[in-house]
Amino acid sequence: MDVMEAIIRRYSVRSYQQRPVEEDKLKDILEAARLAPSASNRQEWRFVVVRDEAVRQRLMRAARNQPFVGQAPVVIACCAVTDNHIMGCGQLCYPIDIAIAIEHMVLKAVEEGLGTCWIGAFNQEQVKEILDIPEDVPVVELLALGYPEKDSSMPKDRLKLEEIVMYERWRR
Amino acid sequence: MDVMEAIIRRYSVRSYQQRPVEEDKLKDILEAARLAPSASNRQEWRFVVVRDEAVRQRLMRAARNQPFVGQAPVVIACCAVTDNHIMGCGQLCYPIDIAIAIEHMVLKAVEEGLGTCWIGAFNQEQVKEILDIPEDVPVVELLALGYPEKDSSMPKDRLKLEEIVMYERWRR
Repeated sequence: MDVMEAIIRRYSVRSYQQRPVEEDKLKDILEAARLAPSASNRQEWRFVVVRDEAVRQRLMRAARNQPFVGQAPVVIACCAVTDNHIMGCGQLCYPIDIAIAIEHMVLKAVEEGLGTCWIGAFNQEQVKEILDIPEDVPVVELLALGYPEKDSSMPKDRLKLEEIVMYERWRR
Repeated sequence: MDVMEAIIRRYSVRSYQQRPVEEDKLKDILEAARLAPSASNRQEWRFVVVRDEAVRQRLMRAARNQPFVGQAPVVIACCAVTDNHIMGCGQLCYPIDIAIAIEHMVLKAVEEGLGTCWIGAFNQEQVKEILDIPEDVPVVELLALGYPEKDSSMPKDRLKLEEIVMYERWRR
């Protein structure tokens, strides 16, 4: 599947089939993350792949009881083993690098006929406790993964290109 | 081009041809960013596309004199118009969302035969001054864009899958 087609087809899937995700597809999706770029090739990403139903139910409760978190056959806790390096521009390195790796998984999942949803609304301490994640390892996002109930998406509600792009300098 | 092929072919291009980037290709790349997901569809991304050579030379000086920043025919300043929203998990929203949009551009560029390089090593205040960017608008990254001098890349130096993936819970 073309990159652009994957970008267009991707949507935040909040309703999943109970069909499990094949082992080889899951591996390919994780491989897409593994190959991501990161600042100075730091590769601070770590992924805890959760398929156990009881654990997913606990994650759901830690994620504001959003039902799809418990329903998705796979939930990936996207973590960082990090020294909190700040880049020259002043930005913290790890959230950006982990985000790149996650979006690689998201687009590769579309290519495999799967769906995902980024989850930022969760209790950090509770997720750490459920998955036995060390105190100094931030969980940046959870990612739900599975076969979507519906395979189509609504047209995307986005700002127009001219509202987000400027040429040569900032236009007020 | 398949998503996975784009991921594999992508590398940090630090040597560019002087051939300009076609207008329609640039538009398609920006469109890939426009369609990116963001937390609650906030779309805080804004892009300042710089093609003027004199301005690119100034950006190069603000980016630790890395020569490819001046050499690339296009440099995109990837900014955020943001209220600094913090997600439930404790992470700042905008660096993650802008990173997703940037990586969409990066992968779409590969599909178009173009190359890119993420640049986080730059002086925030100098870039703001050069591009007339307001004080409260962070420049998250610069992105160099153009036709690569070489079209091949080295094999990627990455941690193994088993070094970055754990199952069901964190393994110490």
